[in-house]
Amino acid sequence: MIPFNHKIKNRAKNINSYLCIGIDVDPALVKSNEFDDLVSHSKKIVDATRDIALCYKPNFAFFERWGARGFKWLEDIVHYIGEDAIVIADAKRGDIGNTAKQYAESIFNHFGFDCVTLSPYMGEDSIKPFIDFEEKGVFILCRTSNPSADTFQSQNLIGGDHIYELVAKWANDLNTKDNVGLVVGATAPKELSKVRKLAPDLPILIPGVGAQGGNLNNCVFEGNKTGIGIVNVSRDISFSGDCSEKSIRESALSYVEKINEALNG
Amino acid sequence: MIPFNHKIKNRAKNINSYLCIGIDVDPALVKSNEFDDLVSHSKKIVDATRDIALCYKPNFAFFERWGARGFKWLEDIVHYIGEDAIVIADAKRGDIGNTAKQYAESIFNHFGFDCVTLSPYMGEDSIKPFIDFEEKGVFILCRTSNPSADTFQSQNLIGGDHIYELVAKWANDLNTKDNVGLVVGATAPKELSKVRKLAPDLPILIPGVGAQGGNLNNCVFEGNKTGIGIVNVSRDISFSGDCSEKSIRESALSYVEKINEALNG
Repeated sequence: MIPFNHKIKNRAKNINSYLCIGIDVDPALVKSNEFDDLVSHSKKIVDATRDIALCYKPNFAFFERWGARGFKWLEDIVHYIGEDAIVIADAKRGDIGNTAKQYAESIFNHFGFDCVTLSPYMGEDSIKPFIDFEEKGVFILCRTSNPSADTFQSQNLIGGDHIYELVAKWANDLNTKDNVGLVVGATAPKELSKVRKLAPDLPILIPGVGAQGGNLNNCVFEGNKTGIGIVNVSRDISFSGDCSEKSIRESALSYVEKINEALNG
Repeated sequence: MIPFNHKIKNRAKNINSYLCIGIDVDPALVKSNEFDDLVSHSKKIVDATRDIALCYKPNFAFFERWGARGFKWLEDIVHYIGEDAIVIADAKRGDIGNTAKQYAESIFNHFGFDCVTLSPYMGEDSIKPFIDFEEKGVFILCRTSNPSADTFQSQNLIGGDHIYELVAKWANDLNTKDNVGLVVGATAPKELSKVRKLAPDLPILIPGVGAQGGNLNNCVFEGNKTGIGIVNVSRDISFSGDCSEKSIRESALSYVEKINEALNG
């Protein structure tokens, strides 16, 4: 069995891509409320980028808002992506152990995702049922990309750390099966640099590039000093230009190239 | 328009019940993997307790693990509960603003829940799209009931607070529309007492009684010193005795009575 953190590094090297593509199909951006148009658009994103996407990251919110048929769509899109790319369930789960077991069953066994994003707020109980699936992975929210991330994550603790630093150390300790990673936003470059030092081997999933304004070169450099830094882009690829397959592919290719330049430059 | 926090207090007084019933239909406890048996059991819980439940709280994990048909079940059970009881979406959401909007659309408009549980880790952006629905409510995780809750929630900040105290004060400040509440576990009696002082008017949803071992009398007393304290019980009602409607009702009635004794005693 190949541990999850090896699996993701292997694919990155094999296809020479550190790009994660968010599949967040916002009806306002598709300019349609026809459900079938949203489904088609999600498949178009995958068709345009199969060979260059290290990962796909569907965010559950954009599926859940359509209720049962949205989850049918989620089942279908995970299947449509298939076995090659890593598929990240962007679900940000965090619940008591008994409930976390049900979520792990859902995300890994029912939907067939390779890994999941989790919130650290409830501690180890809420993480363990996921990392017990040894071939699957978790990305724990550490320092998120949104404007109000600071409110709690950057609070100063008496021992000298910020909360996000404590999360990084704790996640590093949880990584006994080589299947734990972290989420750190590109909008927080200093924090990303600190986290990389605290958790040198953990994969870091880096959202916040593109629509959210994070600096690409810096986050690629910091995230890949050691371990692997995976850059997530959602809107700036999925809704690029005229939203055609050609336009989506061009945007994705351009990101792959910019990331590789930053890696090698 | 009646603000959410008034609506919940009004129903509690009208039916003289401060009991929330968790609808977490674990197949291991139903002793069946037949999906129809799980659906029947969830309806049985509602049938047995309609007149005595202040709230029902379906936890999304137990529905999501069945994928699209699980969410069809969730749509159906919210409709089956109807307009009288308060229906809490136990979803523990927390995501960037753009995504939180989709979740709010899902939970309030698509599924028709009255309120939702949210994680504070990502700060105000992740909460605001929900509280903008003025007639709906939110319960923000403050000090949870699980064994590892302490890891982050009880960290000491340089200013003198624990994280959970900062969450309580912050939630209190967010409550400009009278639709913000908190989650504090019965397993943390000292913390509950402190939170009640920091947020005197906010409804507190109190899980952790029953299977998780929290003390009922104490949490009812502390939670209702000011504001309203709502006691959640899941497994100890839903799977009481022989799991018959009679047994479920007896357990729920017994909790309503014990809560009322603690309130008046």
